[in-house]
Amino acid sequence: MNLWFTENQTDNLRLSFRIKKLLAYRESKFQKLAVYDTFEYGKLFTLDDFVMLTEKDEFVYHEMISHVALNCHPNPENILVIGGGDGGTIREIEKHDRVKNITLVEIDEEVVKISKEFLPFVACGFEDKRVKVYIEDGIEYIKNHKNEFDIIFIDSTDPVAFAEGLFHTEFYQFVFEALKEDGIMVAQTEYPFLKGDFIKQVFSSLKEVFPIVSPYLASIPTYPTGLWSFAFASKKYHFIKNANFEYIKPFEKELKYYSPEIHKACFSLPPFIKKLV
Amino acid sequence: MNLWFTENQTDNLRLSFRIKKLLAYRESKFQKLAVYDTFEYGKLFTLDDFVMLTEKDEFVYHEMISHVALNCHPNPENILVIGGGDGGTIREIEKHDRVKNITLVEIDEEVVKISKEFLPFVACGFEDKRVKVYIEDGIEYIKNHKNEFDIIFIDSTDPVAFAEGLFHTEFYQFVFEALKEDGIMVAQTEYPFLKGDFIKQVFSSLKEVFPIVSPYLASIPTYPTGLWSFAFASKKYHFIKNANFEYIKPFEKELKYYSPEIHKACFSLPPFIKKLV
Repeated sequence: MNLWFTENQTDNLRLSFRIKKLLAYRESKFQKLAVYDTFEYGKLFTLDDFVMLTEKDEFVYHEMISHVALNCHPNPENILVIGGGDGGTIREIEKHDRVKNITLVEIDEEVVKISKEFLPFVACGFEDKRVKVYIEDGIEYIKNHKNEFDIIFIDSTDPVAFAEGLFHTEFYQFVFEALKEDGIMVAQTEYPFLKGDFIKQVFSSLKEVFPIVSPYLASIPTYPTGLWSFAFASKKYHFIKNANFEYIKPFEKELKYYSPEIHKACFSLPPFIKKLV
Repeated sequence: MNLWFTENQTDNLRLSFRIKKLLAYRESKFQKLAVYDTFEYGKLFTLDDFVMLTEKDEFVYHEMISHVALNCHPNPENILVIGGGDGGTIREIEKHDRVKNITLVEIDEEVVKISKEFLPFVACGFEDKRVKVYIEDGIEYIKNHKNEFDIIFIDSTDPVAFAEGLFHTEFYQFVFEALKEDGIMVAQTEYPFLKGDFIKQVFSSLKEVFPIVSPYLASIPTYPTGLWSFAFASKKYHFIKNANFEYIKPFEKELKYYSPEIHKACFSLPPFIKKLV
């Protein structure tokens, strides 16, 4: 059998995965959802034919979106995740005993449902008693919460359609207000090799709102260009000076990408990216 | 027009580039050579349908293969490059005034010819008077030279066919002998996300021969998985302790990926790679 799933990463670039089987296909109010079994990367989850995660490399994205900020905050009790309906981000957050409450706001219930059925390696995150799930628009949710969260993670899809508003100054201002006085925000911010202008705009917006802002980088093979950027935006704590690696000691050996060394290294930006921000 | 070049990165994974034009196609004694003009990455050079370089991202590979070792050696006068017939690696080496002689040994003359005709942004490296080019088998060349070079760069294709012997203990022993008593070798060593077993074997072989060995990493979008590894193997100088960034001061502003910060960060390995080596 020679069956392939192809992502149009840009108009001029495609990544294709050889497929063992299509496991699920659904259409929700918001998007088309699919789960495939691939030969190279295990299970593959797509939204509107864009790769969201694969079984074999999701550890990079989920470890890197979560542990960087969690190790910079001395007391991260109340956590908000916008998006992240597959469960992978909360699975990592739960490893920190200091976390008391995790609120996950996902716009599309079908993302949670399909993950629970077909992607147990990430959806295991929903089993923890500290987690509360709200199915609603993250932008609306955040407007109605002030001075409440220690860390907010924006675990969104690409900046198109309903997710587009998650990358604007106005939204970052609401995030700022929803955070406590020493809060931190982390967001995924796309791929610097081909989206330099977008990253420039996003970091310029973030710097209007937060006093401490830096991109950091991680290698994710199944995302366009393989090099992904995240934004660390903070009211008080610094991404290097306030990092404390004692917090991950109890589970450090489980981690496959994140480590104290990687925490420091991921903020080292090649000059072509430094120029953008 | 909807014309695509597709690389079979593995049996189960493909990367495709939309093409403006096929600029050249040739067959040499060793391989099929092609140059395309692409929409996303500018000129694209392939050997046997594998991506060798693109105009837009070659700077990462060429800066990272060369400057790391050059900044760790106090007196790199005599340099040997095995492979590298496109000229990109020697273009970077030439930026160091301390370098007096550069010997490039390329097995396939057609690689040099097609690069000079179609890839001037890398082939400009051949214009420097310090460069001598030999068209012959790098393995044979190195067997006949002892105690001669300060740094040897193995800028090879993938470990298949005639390049396969460039990744074995026996070859590394010849490289060791061709180096002076304080020499350094750098080699490209493929992609850790999918070639873990290969990398394990290569670094185990290197450690049999050299006292100081470490992988280092760089993000190269058009290579499989986007994360590439290099080997730093040295008789005397350490990759961090002996690094001196004064050497790049005269041209530091031209560099787009390499920097003193990146030099230190690129040796920070995610735990899943650390386990391999």
